[in-house]
Amino acid sequence: MGEHIVACDTLRSYCAKLMMTQNVPEEEALLIADHLVEAEMCGVSSHGVSRTSIYLKRLASGVVNSRWDHKVEQEYAASVQWNACNSMGMVTGVRAMERCIEKAAESGGCFIAVSHSNHFGMAGYYAKMAARRGMIGICATNAPPNIAPWGSYKAYVGTNPLAISAPRRGEPLLLDMAPSVVAMGKVILAAKLGKDIPEGWAITADGRPTTDPNLGMKGTVLPIGGPKGYGLSLCMDILCGLLSGAEFGPYLGNMWNDFINPQNVGHIFCAIDISKFTDLEHFRDRMEKMAGDIKALPKNPGVDAIYLPGEIEVNRRAAAAEQGVVLSQVVYQELVELGETYGVAPEI
Amino acid sequence: MGEHIVACDTLRSYCAKLMMTQNVPEEEALLIADHLVEAEMCGVSSHGVSRTSIYLKRLASGVVNSRWDHKVEQEYAASVQWNACNSMGMVTGVRAMERCIEKAAESGGCFIAVSHSNHFGMAGYYAKMAARRGMIGICATNAPPNIAPWGSYKAYVGTNPLAISAPRRGEPLLLDMAPSVVAMGKVILAAKLGKDIPEGWAITADGRPTTDPNLGMKGTVLPIGGPKGYGLSLCMDILCGLLSGAEFGPYLGNMWNDFINPQNVGHIFCAIDISKFTDLEHFRDRMEKMAGDIKALPKNPGVDAIYLPGEIEVNRRAAAAEQGVVLSQVVYQELVELGETYGVAPEI
Repeated sequence: MGEHIVACDTLRSYCAKLMMTQNVPEEEALLIADHLVEAEMCGVSSHGVSRTSIYLKRLASGVVNSRWDHKVEQEYAASVQWNACNSMGMVTGVRAMERCIEKAAESGGCFIAVSHSNHFGMAGYYAKMAARRGMIGICATNAPPNIAPWGSYKAYVGTNPLAISAPRRGEPLLLDMAPSVVAMGKVILAAKLGKDIPEGWAITADGRPTTDPNLGMKGTVLPIGGPKGYGLSLCMDILCGLLSGAEFGPYLGNMWNDFINPQNVGHIFCAIDISKFTDLEHFRDRMEKMAGDIKALPKNPGVDAIYLPGEIEVNRRAAAAEQGVVLSQVVYQELVELGETYGVAPEI
Repeated sequence: MGEHIVACDTLRSYCAKLMMTQNVPEEEALLIADHLVEAEMCGVSSHGVSRTSIYLKRLASGVVNSRWDHKVEQEYAASVQWNACNSMGMVTGVRAMERCIEKAAESGGCFIAVSHSNHFGMAGYYAKMAARRGMIGICATNAPPNIAPWGSYKAYVGTNPLAISAPRRGEPLLLDMAPSVVAMGKVILAAKLGKDIPEGWAITADGRPTTDPNLGMKGTVLPIGGPKGYGLSLCMDILCGLLSGAEFGPYLGNMWNDFINPQNVGHIFCAIDISKFTDLEHFRDRMEKMAGDIKALPKNPGVDAIYLPGEIEVNRRAAAAEQGVVLSQVVYQELVELGETYGVAPEI
C-alpha cells in the first residue's frame, strides 16, 4: 500500500472544513484541525487525522455539542472548577489552559479541573502551551478503561496520560506518557492498518497474551512497572474524574460505540509560573546545561543519540513543517471518503 | 540471624533521643523519629531507622544544620519559594507541607518549591498530610543520580520519587513511587543485609546486568517503562531542582560520602483543596465506590486480593501499631551501637 505526502496547511484546512460541515464555528474548527495535524507532524499518528472520522460521527449524531461553551462552577485564586458543557475536548483544552496560564501569572500557580468534556487528543498539546509562556505546564485526562488494576485482568482505569512540559531556549521539553507500555491508540491504529502488535503490549479480555490488535483492543494494555503504572493511572483518574466531578473508570462514556450518552470525560490543567520561583532566564540556562550534559553521555551499543523527552517529536515536527506529513493509504483514503460523505472537495 | 520486635513508641523515643544528642531540638527530633518509625511500620524499611546512622553522622559533621530554619524568598497566593537553610529534610518537609495546606485552603491550590534542603525520607509522608486534611497532596524530591537517561548507561537523574495522596473514608490512598523498577534504597538495604538482588533491578557502572547489590549501588537502577521512567525522573528534577533553584542531577551533594558540601536537595510540595472543586463528602463517597469496585474485580490465578495504592502499607501499619515493628539483627545491632557511640541508654 502506498503513502501520501500532504502539506500541513492543506491538511489543516481540509480537516477544519470537515469539522465546519457539522456546525463547528471556523475558529474552533481550526483549533481542532491544528491539534490533529500537530499530532501527525510529531509522528503521534495514533492521535492524528485518523481521529477525524469518529469526531465527525459524534458531532453528526449530536452526542457532542458543535459549539464550545463552559460554566465556571467555582473559582479561587489558584483554582477553577470548569464544566465543559459537553463541548469538543480540543477546544475546551485550549481555552482551559489559556485561563490557567492567566491565573498562574497572578497567583504563581493554578489548577483547572474540567468535567463534562470529551476526548481531547494529546495532553502534551496543552502542557506545551504553558511552557511556551515561560511556565511549567501539566495536563492529564481520564479515559475509558483499558488497564487492569494490578492483580486483576479486568480493565478498570484508562491509559490516562500525564503530560509535563518545561521551557528551554528553543522548543519546550515535553513528557507526554500513558502509564501503559504503549497507548491504546497505537493498538487501535495497528488494527486499522491491519498490522500485528508485539507481545507485551496488550492482553486479551480473559488475560492471555496476544499479538492481534483486535483482541488487544477488547482486552487491556499492560501498565509500566506493574503496580506503579496502575497506581499512576488511578491517581490521574482521581485528579481528572473525581476532583472535577466528571465520570471515572468504567462509568465514562465510550467514544467509539455510544452515540447517545455524553462521555463526561474529566481533565486537569496546571500551570506554574517559573518567574515566581526563580529567574526565568536562569531556569532556561540550567535546562540547556542539563540537556547538553545528557546529550553528551556515553551511549549504549547501537544507540545513535540520547534524547530529551519530546525531542524526537520536535525533530519530526520540523521536518514535517518543510516536507509535509506522510499519511498511510488507509488513513488518506478514509479522509477522501469523509470529504465525499460530508460534501467537502478533497483538496488533499 | 535473628529479628527483634520493638514497640513503636519505644523506637520513636530512642531515635529522637539519638537526634537530640546532636543539638536537634526535641520537637524536631520527634518529627524525624516519627518519620523513621512510620517507614518501619509501613514496611518501607529502606527509609526506616537504618537511616538513623547516616543522619547522625551528617549532623555530627556539621554538614547539616541541627536547628530548623527557612527563608521565604518569594510568595504569591499559590506559590512559595522556600530556602530550607540546610536544615534536616524531614523537619522542612512537615513545615513546608503545613504551609502549603494553609495556602491551598485560601487559594484552592498551592505549590511550594524548596531549595537548600537535605534527604527528606518518604515523599508519601508529606503527601498524606494533605490527604488527612481533605486535600489531594502531591510531593516529590530530587536525589543524586542513579538512573541513566534512556540510551545511556551512565546515571544522571535520581530515583526521584513522586507521591500522590487522596482522602478516603479511612486512611488516605497513597501512591509513592520511584520511577525505577525498585528504589535504590532497596538495593542499599540488600547490601547492608548481605542479600542478592534479582536481575532486572540494577546494572553495573559499565552497563552490565547484576545480582550483586554492591555493584548495583555503584551502577544504576533501571527505569520503569524505559524512556517513560527516565522522563518522569527528569521532570521531577525540573520541578524539584530547577524550579526551586536547588541543585539537580549530578550536581547534588552525596549524602553518603560528602561531609563537607551541603547536598542542596530540592523538593516540591503541592496541595489541592478538594472542597474548592466538589463536595468533599461526595468525593469520599466516590473514592469508596472506586475502591469497592476494584477490590471486587476478578483476580489473576494465585492472587489473594487486589490492592489500592498504599493499602498494603496501611494494613502493615495497623499491625505494627499493635505488635511493634520487626527489625533485622543488622539494623537492631546498629541502633544499639549508635546508643553506645552517642551516649543514649539502649532502651530498645
